[in-house]
Amino acid sequence: MSPSPSPSPSPSPSPSSSVEAPGHEAQPTARRLRRLRSHLTPTAPPSPPPGGADRLEMLACARAAKLEVDTARLCEFMRGRHRGVQEQVFAYFNSRPDLQTPVEISKDEHRELCMRQLLGLVREAGIRPFRYVSEDPEKYFAIMEAAGSVDMSLGIKMGVQYSLWGGSVINLGTKRHRDKYFDQIDSMEYPGCFAMTELHHGSNVQGLQTTATFDLITDQFVIDTPNDGAIKWWIGNAAVHGKFATVFAKLMLPTHDARGLADMGVHAFIVPIRDMETHKTLPGIEIHDCGHKIGLNGVDNGALRFRSVRIPRENLLNRFGDVSRDGKYMSSLPTINKRFAATLGELVGGRVGLAYSSVGVLKIAVTIATRYSLLRQQFGPPKKPEVSILDYQSQQHKLMPMLASTYAFHFATLYLVEKYSEMKKSHDDQLVGDVHALSAGLKAYVTSYTAKSLSICREACGGHGYAAVNRFGSLRNDHDIFQTFEGDNTVLLQQVAGDLLKQYKEKFRGGTLAVTWNYLRESMNTYLSQPNPVIARWESEEHLRDPKFQLDAFRYRTSRLLQSVAARLQKHTKTLGSFGAWNRCLNHLLTLAESHIESVILAKFIEAVERYFHFL
Amino acid sequence: MSPSPSPSPSPSPSPSSSVEAPGHEAQPTARRLRRLRSHLTPTAPPSPPPGGADRLEMLACARAAKLEVDTARLCEFMRGRHRGVQEQVFAYFNSRPDLQTPVEISKDEHRELCMRQLLGLVREAGIRPFRYVSEDPEKYFAIMEAAGSVDMSLGIKMGVQYSLWGGSVINLGTKRHRDKYFDQIDSMEYPGCFAMTELHHGSNVQGLQTTATFDLITDQFVIDTPNDGAIKWWIGNAAVHGKFATVFAKLMLPTHDARGLADMGVHAFIVPIRDMETHKTLPGIEIHDCGHKIGLNGVDNGALRFRSVRIPRENLLNRFGDVSRDGKYMSSLPTINKRFAATLGELVGGRVGLAYSSVGVLKIAVTIATRYSLLRQQFGPPKKPEVSILDYQSQQHKLMPMLASTYAFHFATLYLVEKYSEMKKSHDDQLVGDVHALSAGLKAYVTSYTAKSLSICREACGGHGYAAVNRFGSLRNDHDIFQTFEGDNTVLLQQVAGDLLKQYKEKFRGGTLAVTWNYLRESMNTYLSQPNPVIARWESEEHLRDPKFQLDAFRYRTSRLLQSVAARLQKHTKTLGSFGAWNRCLNHLLTLAESHIESVILAKFIEAVERYFHFL
Repeated sequence: MSPSPSPSPSPSPSPSSSVEAPGHEAQPTARRLRRLRSHLTPTAPPSPPPGGADRLEMLACARAAKLEVDTARLCEFMRGRHRGVQEQVFAYFNSRPDLQTPVEISKDEHRELCMRQLLGLVREAGIRPFRYVSEDPEKYFAIMEAAGSVDMSLGIKMGVQYSLWGGSVINLGTKRHRDKYFDQIDSMEYPGCFAMTELHHGSNVQGLQTTATFDLITDQFVIDTPNDGAIKWWIGNAAVHGKFATVFAKLMLPTHDARGLADMGVHAFIVPIRDMETHKTLPGIEIHDCGHKIGLNGVDNGALRFRSVRIPRENLLNRFGDVSRDGKYMSSLPTINKRFAATLGELVGGRVGLAYSSVGVLKIAVTIATRYSLLRQQFGPPKKPEVSILDYQSQQHKLMPMLASTYAFHFATLYLVEKYSEMKKSHDDQLVGDVHALSAGLKAYVTSYTAKSLSICREACGGHGYAAVNRFGSLRNDHDIFQTFEGDNTVLLQQVAGDLLKQYKEKFRGGTLAVTWNYLRESMNTYLSQPNPVIARWESEEHLRDPKFQLDAFRYRTSRLLQSVAARLQKHTKTLGSFGAWNRCLNHLLTLAESHIESVILAKFIEAVERYFHFL
Repeated sequence: MSPSPSPSPSPSPSPSSSVEAPGHEAQPTARRLRRLRSHLTPTAPPSPPPGGADRLEMLACARAAKLEVDTARLCEFMRGRHRGVQEQVFAYFNSRPDLQTPVEISKDEHRELCMRQLLGLVREAGIRPFRYVSEDPEKYFAIMEAAGSVDMSLGIKMGVQYSLWGGSVINLGTKRHRDKYFDQIDSMEYPGCFAMTELHHGSNVQGLQTTATFDLITDQFVIDTPNDGAIKWWIGNAAVHGKFATVFAKLMLPTHDARGLADMGVHAFIVPIRDMETHKTLPGIEIHDCGHKIGLNGVDNGALRFRSVRIPRENLLNRFGDVSRDGKYMSSLPTINKRFAATLGELVGGRVGLAYSSVGVLKIAVTIATRYSLLRQQFGPPKKPEVSILDYQSQQHKLMPMLASTYAFHFATLYLVEKYSEMKKSHDDQLVGDVHALSAGLKAYVTSYTAKSLSICREACGGHGYAAVNRFGSLRNDHDIFQTFEGDNTVLLQQVAGDLLKQYKEKFRGGTLAVTWNYLRESMNTYLSQPNPVIARWESEEHLRDPKFQLDAFRYRTSRLLQSVAARLQKHTKTLGSFGAWNRCLNHLLTLAESHIESVILAKFIEAVERYFHFL
C-alpha cells in the first residue's frame, strides 16, 4: 500500500524488514512468505508454488469481492451528519464566482482574495466556525475541510484565525479573555496570529528565546526579541491582516536575589500588533513579510520582532500559570515541564484538523486520477480498440491501494475527531494522552502519504495531469507544508514512539494503558509468548482474508518492534546516554511509530466496514 | 537507497521482493539475510547476531572510509572538459540581472523573459548550441544543464528549439532541409515547434491521427486534423513564438484502386505556422494556448489544429521515406514499423538530455538540503548545545544515500552521453539499440528518483524549505514533467524490459548482445547455473565491501528477474495472448527494467571511482 514502491540501487535493507525475523523462525518464515506470496501477488516467480491447488488468481479475487454499491447510502455513511454544512460552504462559493481563486493570481492579490473569502464565509454565508472550535469540533473540521477544498489557503487562514489565534485565547486563557475577545475573533473584527515559531526554533519549542519580563512598577509585561534567531517567523496573518498575536515567550519574573530574573518557562501572551483604527504597526513592533512560499500564498506569513513592547499583566493567557500584582507566580501545575505540556496539549486541535484536511486533499486527488484513468485510453491488443489506462496492472498498482487507503484514512481520522471531541468535553487525562499521541501519529502518517500520493497521481495522469487547471500542482504545493507545520512529521513520530515506550514500561509496572493501544497489553502477553501468528496459523483463503488475522499480524509487528527497540535503547543508553541511544535507534523508533499507526488505521477501517454493513 | 522508504499498511509484498527467493534456497537465504543485516544495518534486532565478533559498527565504517578530498581535483574530475562553457553561461546571466527570473512572475511575462534569455544566450553571449546537437552532444548537454539551472524553462525552451525542432529537421530531413533551415534555426530567426503529441495520443505515437495527404495535382501535402482528439497538444513554442512546426502525421498516398488512399505510416513534415513578417497565424491553422502548467511556465505550450493546410512536397522530412513527383513512395527501409523505429530512433537525444538535466536538478536539491542540514540546529543532549540536524540518523537516512546516488547518476548519465556521441558518429546498429534502451531506462529511473528526492529535500529542510526563494518548489514544479515528456516513465521502462527480453531470446539463438548488457550472457551462464552469489559466498567485511561482489549481486537479480518473467510471459501468452500476458506481468517487467538500470548505474559508479583514483 506504499505509494512509492521505488526500487533501491543499493542493498540497504529497510528498517522495518531488518527488525522482523528473529533467528529461530527463519525456516518457517521463509516457507510462510513463499506461501503468502503465491496467494497474494500476481508477480510470483514461475517456480511451482508449494500447494498449487490453493493458489488464488487475482481475477477470481476481484470477482469474489464484487459488491453492489448503493452510492447514495455509501455517501450518506461516509459524509455523515456534517454533509449539510459542507454543502452550505460549496453553495456559497458556487454563487460567488468573484470569490473563486483563479489559476493565475499574484501573491498580494491572493492574500486579499483569501481574506475576502473568509469574510464572506463568516459574514455573508453566516457560517461562524469559532463557536464549534470548542462546542462541536467535528463540525468545525467539516467546515475546514470544505473551505480547504475551495482554496487550501482559505482553509489554513481560517485555521490560523480560529484554531490557532482563537484557540489559544480560549484554551490557554480564562474567562476574562473569552469575554473580551470571543465575539470579535468570531466576527473577524480581530484577525490574529499565533506567534510561536522563531527563526532558530521550530520543533524545539522549549528552546524559544523571546522574553516577557514582568515590570513590577507598571504592572506590565515587556516583550523582547533578544537576537535575530528569536524573531517570530512564518507567522500566519502577520504580514498583512493581523491585529493581535498570541506570542509565546519565556516568562521572566524579578527575584530578590543576585540573579535578578527567574525564567518560569514558555507562556503565551496576547500582544496587539496593529492599531485598531489606522492598521499601522504599533510602536516597538517590526513586521516583515516572509514573502513567497511554495504554496498557500493566500496566507500572509510574516516575521515579528519585539523591542520592549509593553502589554498589561492581564494579557498573559493564564489558565495554567498566572502572575499576581506583586510578581508572584501561581500555578496548579508543579513544574515547568508539566505547564509546558498542558499548554501544548491544548493546541492539539490544529493537528487533528490537519490530519482530517489532508485526507480531504487525498480524496480530491485520487478521485481526479482514477476518473481520468478510466477515461483515458492508450494502446491495446492488435486490431482492437485502445484500453483504459486503468486496465494496466501498473496503473492499478499506483491507484487502487491509494483509493483503499483513502477510505481507511477517512475512518481513522473521523475516529480521531470523535476522540478529540470527547476529550474536549471530559478532559479525561488518559484520553488527553491518547489523543495527543494519536493526533501526532495520524497527522504524520496521513500527510506523508498524501504528499507522496499527489506526485503519483500527477504522474499517473501524464501530460494532462501537468495542466494547472487539473489541480495536482496547487494541491501538492499547498499541501506540502502539512508535513511540517503543527509539528514536523519526523518529530511527531518520535513522540508516538516515546508514548508507546512509556506505555510499555507502565505495563511492566502494572499501570493502565491508554485506549488506542490497549491491544499492546494483549499482544505483549499473547504474541510474544507464542510463535509469530503470520507463521503459525492456517493458510486457507478464508483465514488469509480474515480481518482478525490481518489485524493480528499488524499488531504482532508493532509488539515486536516495541519490544526490540526497548531492549536496544536500554543497551545503548549505558554507553551513549539517553540522547545518543535514542538517535542510534531513530529509524527503528520511526518504524515502530508508523507500524503502530498502521495498526490503528487498519483497526478503524475494519470497524467501519462492519458498521457499514449494519448501516445498510 | 530508495528515497522514500515509506512503510506499508497492507501486507502487499513489493514486486521485487516477491520474485527473489526461490524455494530451495529458503534456509540459506534467511541465514544469509540475517548475517548481512547484522553487518549492514544500525537497526538490527537485539537478538544476538550469529557471529558477534565480525559485526561492523557504523561509526567504525565511517572512520574506515575517511578520505582526504582535494575538492579542486574532484571538481575537475566531475565537471570535465565542459566546465568552461558552463561557466560562460553562468557569467553571462550573472552579468545580466534583468534576465534573471524573479520569484513572482506572470505566465505571459515569464514566456517573454524566457525568450529574451534564450536570445541573449545565443546572440549576446555567443553560445550557439545548435551545431553541438550533432557535432558535440556532450557540449550541447552541458550548455543545457547550465541553462536549466538558471531557469528550467530556459533549458526546456532551448531543448524545444534545438533538440526537438532543430533536431527533427537535421536528423529526419536531408541536405535540402539543412541548407534551408540550419542557420535560421541556429540564430533563432526561425523559432519552431515539435508537433508530435495529440490530445488523445501521447505515448502511443503510432496511433496519431493527423493526416498528410499527397495532392498529385498541386505537388503538395495537405495537412488535416480529422477530429478534436487529433489536435496537436502541449506543443512547446506554439502558443506564442513559433514560426514553424515539425508536424507528425500519417502520410496518405493516392492509390489507383477502390481504397483511394494508402496509409504509409507516421512521417514528419515542416509546416509554417506563422507569417514571417507579421507573425500572424497562417490560414487554415488554429492555435490555442494550453495555459498554465504546474511548472515551466516560461515555455509557451499551445495546441494546433490544421484545416487543409498545404505545404510543398519538399517539406516532407525525407531521410527515411520520400514521395516522388508522381506520388510513388520510396524508402530504403522495408516496413512501416522499421521506418517508424528509425524516425523515433533519431529523437533519442531529447531523452539523453533529460536524464542528464535531471541529475543537474538533483545536484542542486541535494546540495541545498545537505548544507542546510549542517547549519540548522535543533534539540540536543541535556545542558549541551543543540546539534546539527544532519547528526540525526533519520536525516542521514534521507540525505546520504541521495547524495551517493547523485554521484552515481552523474557518472551513469555521462556514460550515456558518451555512448550517444559515439552513436551519432558511427551509426552502428547495435550501439543505436543500446543507446535507445539505455536512454529510456536512465531517463525513467533518474527522473523518478529526482522527483521523489525533491519532495524529501523540501521536507528535510522544514519550514525554511517551503520559502520560495529556497528553490525546492520551482525545482519540483519544473522537473515534475520530466517523468512524462519525451516518453512516460512507465512506458519507457517497458521498452527496456522488451529490449532485455529480445536480447535474452537472441542469446538462446546464439546472437550477439548489445554493449550495456553483455553481462547478461555471462550472468546467465554463471549465476543461473550456480547458487545465488549473495548466499553462497564469503561473509567477511572485505568480501561484502568488494565492488565486484556487489555488482554480482545486482546482476544476479536482473538475470533472475529476466529468466522468471520470460517464463511467465510464455505461460500466460497461451491463454491471454501477448498483450494480456504482458499486462499480467507488468509490474514484474517494470521491476526487471529498474533492476537492470540499477546494475548499469552501479557498474558505472564503480568504474568512475576507480578512474578517480587513477586521476589523482
